[in-house]
Amino acid sequence: MKKSILIAILGGFISTQVSANTWQALPTTAPAPADNPTTAAKVELGKMLYMDPRLSSTGTVSCNSCHNVMEGGDDSRAVSMGVKGQTGGRSAPTVWNAAFYSVQFWDGRANLLEDQAKGPITNPIEMGMKDHDQAMGVIKSIPGYKAPFEKAFGKDSVNIVNAAKAIAAFERTLITPNSAYDRFVKGDKKALNKQQQKGMNKFAELGCNSCHSGAAFNGPKMETGTGFFQKFPTFANNSFVEKYKLTDDKGRAEVTGKKEDTNMFRVPTLRNISDTAPYFHNGSVATLDEAVRIMAKAQLNRDLSAQDTKDIVAFLGALGGEYPEITMPRLPASKGSTVIAD
Amino acid sequence: MKKSILIAILGGFISTQVSANTWQALPTTAPAPADNPTTAAKVELGKMLYMDPRLSSTGTVSCNSCHNVMEGGDDSRAVSMGVKGQTGGRSAPTVWNAAFYSVQFWDGRANLLEDQAKGPITNPIEMGMKDHDQAMGVIKSIPGYKAPFEKAFGKDSVNIVNAAKAIAAFERTLITPNSAYDRFVKGDKKALNKQQQKGMNKFAELGCNSCHSGAAFNGPKMETGTGFFQKFPTFANNSFVEKYKLTDDKGRAEVTGKKEDTNMFRVPTLRNISDTAPYFHNGSVATLDEAVRIMAKAQLNRDLSAQDTKDIVAFLGALGGEYPEITMPRLPASKGSTVIAD
Repeated sequence: MKKSILIAILGGFISTQVSANTWQALPTTAPAPADNPTTAAKVELGKMLYMDPRLSSTGTVSCNSCHNVMEGGDDSRAVSMGVKGQTGGRSAPTVWNAAFYSVQFWDGRANLLEDQAKGPITNPIEMGMKDHDQAMGVIKSIPGYKAPFEKAFGKDSVNIVNAAKAIAAFERTLITPNSAYDRFVKGDKKALNKQQQKGMNKFAELGCNSCHSGAAFNGPKMETGTGFFQKFPTFANNSFVEKYKLTDDKGRAEVTGKKEDTNMFRVPTLRNISDTAPYFHNGSVATLDEAVRIMAKAQLNRDLSAQDTKDIVAFLGALGGEYPEITMPRLPASKGSTVIAD
Repeated sequence: MKKSILIAILGGFISTQVSANTWQALPTTAPAPADNPTTAAKVELGKMLYMDPRLSSTGTVSCNSCHNVMEGGDDSRAVSMGVKGQTGGRSAPTVWNAAFYSVQFWDGRANLLEDQAKGPITNPIEMGMKDHDQAMGVIKSIPGYKAPFEKAFGKDSVNIVNAAKAIAAFERTLITPNSAYDRFVKGDKKALNKQQQKGMNKFAELGCNSCHSGAAFNGPKMETGTGFFQKFPTFANNSFVEKYKLTDDKGRAEVTGKKEDTNMFRVPTLRNISDTAPYFHNGSVATLDEAVRIMAKAQLNRDLSAQDTKDIVAFLGALGGEYPEITMPRLPASKGSTVIAD
């Protein structure tokens, strides 16, 4: 084989690889950690726990309250509302495709979904339980939870570690494949219309995918616990920053205490982004158009034309995938005792 | 035919009729009013609206929050909690089989499910909307609601009347047939065990079914708008009344202003009663055992033995029916605008 041919072949191979890395379809299954392989029994139990508001002190807030799988996996609110009408400072990230993150929360303070699931239960302004013992005390007091825990984890297995594992297993099924974009990437060139393709090219040309890369548009694949963070805003000398209070939240620095983590946030997925208004860590921006304009200015120091904005928004619309059909779980009755803490 | 034979035949016929009236299986379909026949399109839209927390001012409280169809059709709380952690004075009645009531609410202040559905949306301590225009403004602002409304009701049909009709149509599908009791009544004599049959006889012998009669154990079949109310407590000279504050709530008198309606309440269904603790209009009683003891004392002036209580509770357990499988609706996205009122 002549050298030039070899180079041509390798060139073609490399170019295909690059392209595959740049535009990737969403996998239909998510990886699970070695100590928590996904099973049907865990998923079913996890769905029950995820939907059960009795995991909150008032019996009114479930995981699903803020990460509603009947819609975009969040709650349509700027910042979520927990027990007793309390609100925090951050917007609920979508649970859809959360399995494809290498860290959890806006500030990456948890590694696995298993770690994340435990947090809100004892957060005083979210689900408001005093501690995990109180939460699991409620679950233990509900006779009908015993069997599904046994089925998933064996005898005497009602505890917070297993509850979190089950919730994480359920969340790993929350994947939205087969968007127009995915079909396009897999070869159906009619899956995106002209404007969406224009937007896709503009998205790449501007460099949006230097951060929003990978199958979930949330950055490169990284080892669990290694977060892909970016400073937001990177360019703060624009009117958006004050208008939407973009620098008020110190981001990852509030967890690490490190100055260099100021305003660092996990790069969020763009999958189903049309369904998750309002936008950003503080939910301050109502429309996707405005969010796109802000990202161009605050991250790339570019003023987007109205047309480019529209085209990119059209492309982002093509990232809306197929939500799987979910049957409502049957939550066992609080037989014979009051289980509400507050 | 000799007269004596005729009498014997008639006698047998009448006795069968009486028995059929006393112990009735639950119908598998509920009657719908003439101006709102149930259709699949209405049921699907109604399910969406029923599950959508954006019908509340904070975007956090849906019909399902207090009448959760994933469990007993209520909320496991003594009294429900609406927007901003506010609580009212009454316990949420189960939505399961609510279609078999001739009036709605504990005090019967609404006739049809269509009327009931509108109430909580604008109740300041429940869903907290200023008025129905505000609520429907939110629904109109969500583009994805247009098509399901059109499918159910035709063009330009997004309004509160149709929203309530759709919710009511969905609620009419919330029926739990085929309980052990139903199978027993239909002839499967093994469907109830000995203790449950003992409890059933005791229930009748004591006269519980003088009020808790009919297929839903909520009284005789009556014309819509004609409520079957009873005074509770009827006998107030016992320690339960003070302990559980049973006379504090004036019941129907708070709606009618009539003295004779004091402490009058709609007789609630006993279907799935094991799944709806805590009990009574004020949710003050945690266990079914205690609720049964109180009913015997406060309504029939009888002190139940521990054994009779257990037997009746066992019988009531046999009133737990089959909950239909429900697929989660897909709630359309709040595209591009903030729809939360508060």
